[in-house]
Amino acid sequence: MKSFDKFFYPKSIAIIGASSKPGNLSYELIGNLLKFNYIGKIYPINTKSDVVNTLKAYKSVTDVSDEIELALIMVPKALVIPAIDDCHKKKINSVILITAGFRETGEEGEKLENELLTKIRNCNIRLVGPNCMGIINSKPDVSMNGTFVLGNPLFGGIGFCSQSGALGAAVVKTVQQNDIGLGQFISIGNKADVTENDILKYWKDNNDVKVITLYLESFANPKEFMKICREITKIKPVILIKAAKTNAGMRAASSHTGALASADAIANAIIEQSGVIRVNTVEEMFDIAKAFDKAKMPKGNRAGILTNAGGPAILCVDECEKSGLTVPELQEKTKNEIAKIAPPEASLHNPVDLLPPATADVWAKAAEFMIEDENIDSLIVIIGPPLTYDTVEIMTAVYEAVKHSEKSVLFTMMSQDENIPKMQTSVPEHPPLFKFPEPPARTLGEMLKFKKWKERESKEKIKFEVRKEKVQEIFDSLKTKGEFYLEFEDVYKILKYYGIPIIESVSVTDEKGALNTAQDIGYPVVLKCIGKELIHKTDVGGVKLDIKSKDELLNSIKDIKESLKSKNLLSKLEGFLIQPFYKGGLETIFGIVNDNSAGHMIMFGLGGIMVEILKDVKFRLAGFDETDAYDMIESLKGYELLKGIRGQKAVDIDFVVENLLKLSKLIEDFPVIEELDLNPFVFSHQREKCKILDARIKLIMP
Amino acid sequence: MKSFDKFFYPKSIAIIGASSKPGNLSYELIGNLLKFNYIGKIYPINTKSDVVNTLKAYKSVTDVSDEIELALIMVPKALVIPAIDDCHKKKINSVILITAGFRETGEEGEKLENELLTKIRNCNIRLVGPNCMGIINSKPDVSMNGTFVLGNPLFGGIGFCSQSGALGAAVVKTVQQNDIGLGQFISIGNKADVTENDILKYWKDNNDVKVITLYLESFANPKEFMKICREITKIKPVILIKAAKTNAGMRAASSHTGALASADAIANAIIEQSGVIRVNTVEEMFDIAKAFDKAKMPKGNRAGILTNAGGPAILCVDECEKSGLTVPELQEKTKNEIAKIAPPEASLHNPVDLLPPATADVWAKAAEFMIEDENIDSLIVIIGPPLTYDTVEIMTAVYEAVKHSEKSVLFTMMSQDENIPKMQTSVPEHPPLFKFPEPPARTLGEMLKFKKWKERESKEKIKFEVRKEKVQEIFDSLKTKGEFYLEFEDVYKILKYYGIPIIESVSVTDEKGALNTAQDIGYPVVLKCIGKELIHKTDVGGVKLDIKSKDELLNSIKDIKESLKSKNLLSKLEGFLIQPFYKGGLETIFGIVNDNSAGHMIMFGLGGIMVEILKDVKFRLAGFDETDAYDMIESLKGYELLKGIRGQKAVDIDFVVENLLKLSKLIEDFPVIEELDLNPFVFSHQREKCKILDARIKLIMP
Repeated sequence: MKSFDKFFYPKSIAIIGASSKPGNLSYELIGNLLKFNYIGKIYPINTKSDVVNTLKAYKSVTDVSDEIELALIMVPKALVIPAIDDCHKKKINSVILITAGFRETGEEGEKLENELLTKIRNCNIRLVGPNCMGIINSKPDVSMNGTFVLGNPLFGGIGFCSQSGALGAAVVKTVQQNDIGLGQFISIGNKADVTENDILKYWKDNNDVKVITLYLESFANPKEFMKICREITKIKPVILIKAAKTNAGMRAASSHTGALASADAIANAIIEQSGVIRVNTVEEMFDIAKAFDKAKMPKGNRAGILTNAGGPAILCVDECEKSGLTVPELQEKTKNEIAKIAPPEASLHNPVDLLPPATADVWAKAAEFMIEDENIDSLIVIIGPPLTYDTVEIMTAVYEAVKHSEKSVLFTMMSQDENIPKMQTSVPEHPPLFKFPEPPARTLGEMLKFKKWKERESKEKIKFEVRKEKVQEIFDSLKTKGEFYLEFEDVYKILKYYGIPIIESVSVTDEKGALNTAQDIGYPVVLKCIGKELIHKTDVGGVKLDIKSKDELLNSIKDIKESLKSKNLLSKLEGFLIQPFYKGGLETIFGIVNDNSAGHMIMFGLGGIMVEILKDVKFRLAGFDETDAYDMIESLKGYELLKGIRGQKAVDIDFVVENLLKLSKLIEDFPVIEELDLNPFVFSHQREKCKILDARIKLIMP
Repeated sequence: MKSFDKFFYPKSIAIIGASSKPGNLSYELIGNLLKFNYIGKIYPINTKSDVVNTLKAYKSVTDVSDEIELALIMVPKALVIPAIDDCHKKKINSVILITAGFRETGEEGEKLENELLTKIRNCNIRLVGPNCMGIINSKPDVSMNGTFVLGNPLFGGIGFCSQSGALGAAVVKTVQQNDIGLGQFISIGNKADVTENDILKYWKDNNDVKVITLYLESFANPKEFMKICREITKIKPVILIKAAKTNAGMRAASSHTGALASADAIANAIIEQSGVIRVNTVEEMFDIAKAFDKAKMPKGNRAGILTNAGGPAILCVDECEKSGLTVPELQEKTKNEIAKIAPPEASLHNPVDLLPPATADVWAKAAEFMIEDENIDSLIVIIGPPLTYDTVEIMTAVYEAVKHSEKSVLFTMMSQDENIPKMQTSVPEHPPLFKFPEPPARTLGEMLKFKKWKERESKEKIKFEVRKEKVQEIFDSLKTKGEFYLEFEDVYKILKYYGIPIIESVSVTDEKGALNTAQDIGYPVVLKCIGKELIHKTDVGGVKLDIKSKDELLNSIKDIKESLKSKNLLSKLEGFLIQPFYKGGLETIFGIVNDNSAGHMIMFGLGGIMVEILKDVKFRLAGFDETDAYDMIESLKGYELLKGIRGQKAVDIDFVVENLLKLSKLIEDFPVIEELDLNPFVFSHQREKCKILDARIKLIMP
């Protein structure tokens, strides 16, 4: 038996704190279990009354002689711990704690929640909540509505896990009118013990759940979320609303990478890397979920549209184009066949517009010709007023005509909410039903994206070696503790040891050394000041580019010294760095940042305008693979620039990937690295010309 | 009496082609007039039956002795012209032709439509349609549902004009359940005579229409649309769905500007320049429309949120941030007052979460404290299940508590469609009602944008002079007819005469001339080939930059000649152009394109990546004013670049505007210009350094 079966498929439920007063939430919850014909036994626990909502009530779970598989606790918060003790005595290991007043109310509540957590861990109890709304399994052989929301859940393949009880309640209340086949629902509240990750793991192997939907305000453990979702999305889709996108309370960042690592950028990275479909609204979430639940997966992106409503069909075409679908011409054969049966003024191009006066028989035949058309992969049927014939009769006939096809079929019934329950009765196995012309197009687009994700091949062609032990030596030799920037010489060596191409850089202490080095390297050169306290070199006037001669070099050294002097920083100067001056190529930026909750993230983006104005960068949790790295690069707005525009050659994208993988390895080997900027990292089509021109590493040494 | 009053406020209607058979569209239309209690007289015209749907029927309108103000024609298409003749005889000047089968069906139908048009113009009749769905005025003293859509229009300040009958029907059918106060509706079908522009003009001065909504697939006359909308939007908002965004059938463009002028870019330009709010879906359109209809205009962007549903409130906060609103902390006073009455576990920060157990009285008091809070400009109330008390009672109490405030109030009632009609009865003057937490935030954002548009001040500080007569001389001297590119020397002169700063350019015929000119101008210089047939100079190797010396110049001339020779183009070489070599500054692109339907459009954008990758350019119809030009520039994604990033100085933006105005003047003076590219036009913070480095003008001479 699976770990959470007792939550979702309990044979008996105790409601601890079951009120005998109608209107009270616990009374309503028992009412829902009864009304929805729960198949198991219900044990109300009430210390005062011996009957609750027609059922025999007990003083304590320990008074019940039969086994109890699940306890729903709804007592006032002061009585929660004793109730848990009772559960333990009764050997109940699955508890849903609906009672509120814990961590969400402040310090005192947080203390109580911690106490609770210790208690259940000692008792070997798994606990959902506190501050949650209950559980639903609408499968006919369970029929459990274990919530206090008045609503008649509609069975289907969708699982919904919500961090917000109120949002869950709002959804549960409208599943029928919105045709959402909500098979399983769980409200996880404060996530004190059971988190979304537990539910995800459970649903992964649960055959009743075909599509997983989530509402989250925070990730319990982003890294684990990613790991689990990557496994799940090989089998079934996960659709997520990640709310609370504000950046309030973000820590101040000292690096360029840190400044770009907004809470939402990090969340997006985790979601993209997980293969999870991110949506913005509840409507959108369930539109997509019901398509996955009830439509077949499209084989390609060519949509056929059959309608009686020209305007809505055009809106659907517009949305198809936005969602990566095409609406191609039909085969001549198809048009000819439809012409024979359709009203004389019907439009036979795709969208096929049958106009109001078409009978169910005409609709069905037209649908049949279209679904067999070799030019299309999916069929969207849009029916709206004015209606001369009965919608349900028409749509039932259409369904019968196309149900054997392997192509995707989606229905929009505009302005006919009253017909949705009728369709549910007439055709229990109906295609997904939408209320507007755009969602079927949008959902097909998401299905195609998911298909691509599922089918993506794992690349493993890039090999490289790193010298971990040499970098270890550098870290071992450091004497400073706490948070500090590495000296450039160490940065240089570390990158070299990991095969990350930092530009040739020689440090010198005086004019003579500078002149000799410049001679060796060859003009033009770059001159930079060195000094532990001179981190922001440009800001202090400590960088000179494109130095073409001896004289220029000497003047530049003079300039830097004067600039430092004017800022009272001359005493901090420890020497100079000489590098070849590098021109051309495409500027990129690589970075590492340590997110408070997710851990180390690698960043990549294009330099210049793309980062400055458009913040066009992508993050990924360290430890990603080669395929992820390509995805990351290809998802940039400026990806075309890497591929070369206006006749320029593409940069060596494989080498970009290789360097991302090396950075990922570096941070996995040395998590003391807190932040890293490689900026700019210049790329060219020739690998030997790809160079980092400046780099910084910040550590936090324990 | 206003021109279209007889359409929207008729005292008597004839239905020509009124069937006596139930189920027939004309029978249903008369049924709707009756059911909705139309206040005027109805005259069914039926050649066979003398009674239709309980009403006395006539053989012809000419048999009716009383005056008829409006005729709805629903006869088969072959009988339309005779019906029009009858109307003319009866002195009916307002006709709605519902019959289909005209232009939309192809060539033959188009012929018939043209005939029809000639006929009505001769008869001095204004005609709506053909191929349309009718008209509605739900104002209680008119009560006309002149459509065949079963639905009970809800009176309010929204006017809706739809090019699609089906979409109109879908909307009309759901006005009540979606709380859309649809005062007036008109389906304009094929727009043979009456177009959206006529309706817009009429609604401009109609006090019953407070908000105009439109569904369009094409603009009847884009320029006129813009002109009318600019006038209307000084008074009331216009919200538009512009469908059919595809670029199918776009003409091939030879200029850079032309290539960027997609159908949707042009449509967007017209819409932005009109002050019209563009939306993508019907839901969004009416969400915004009902906010304008029923909420007060927000004075600022600070929103307060009052709720019993934490999750939905967070989704609302996220949407506020996306829509340019803030959700600030409330005043201490407010929080203290709410604390005294709210349930102990309520959250007192904004959003204020009263949790399920709050009574109507608590809700009302909390709302009152919040609306008086000086930190907020608007109040969004979100109520969702689980509900311990009655929603309608709560929302009625909240409305009573805040109705006297000048601040904007918006209600979301989640998952409670059944309560919407109850609210309509309980509080006829209720605030706009939404079903989801995001729309009130989005609509407030749109209201603030509209406010800004309405209040924008007309700038008129830029003055310049042009020498139109000198350019006229150039055009007069041209001998070529048809489509051709101007020679660079003429382009140069034209721009000079309009004060548009083309870089100093001297044409020479041989090496000697080149050397002398370069000497005069000063090295480095740019060398370009000249030749009527050498338009794409770069492609033929005819451009050399940064020439630093005599020798380099001679070599460059040699190189160009060799390149032309290798392409068999040497005979086309007519000479060379010498220009100073210009480095630095911000590259922009200016252009003119002649759109088939809208006419001449001016384009502006930033060069390089911004145009190549992001297509970040804006178009405006020629003839715009200074304020428009600033709007155009400020609406670019890359606007920040013009203002200067990373410590760079802002470019002379006033000078960008001045040049846009000059181009606009140029094209108004000389509409024979078909396309123009100024690319690159380099800008700096110093006006004298702003220069066009290359320019092309294509003419179509009659």
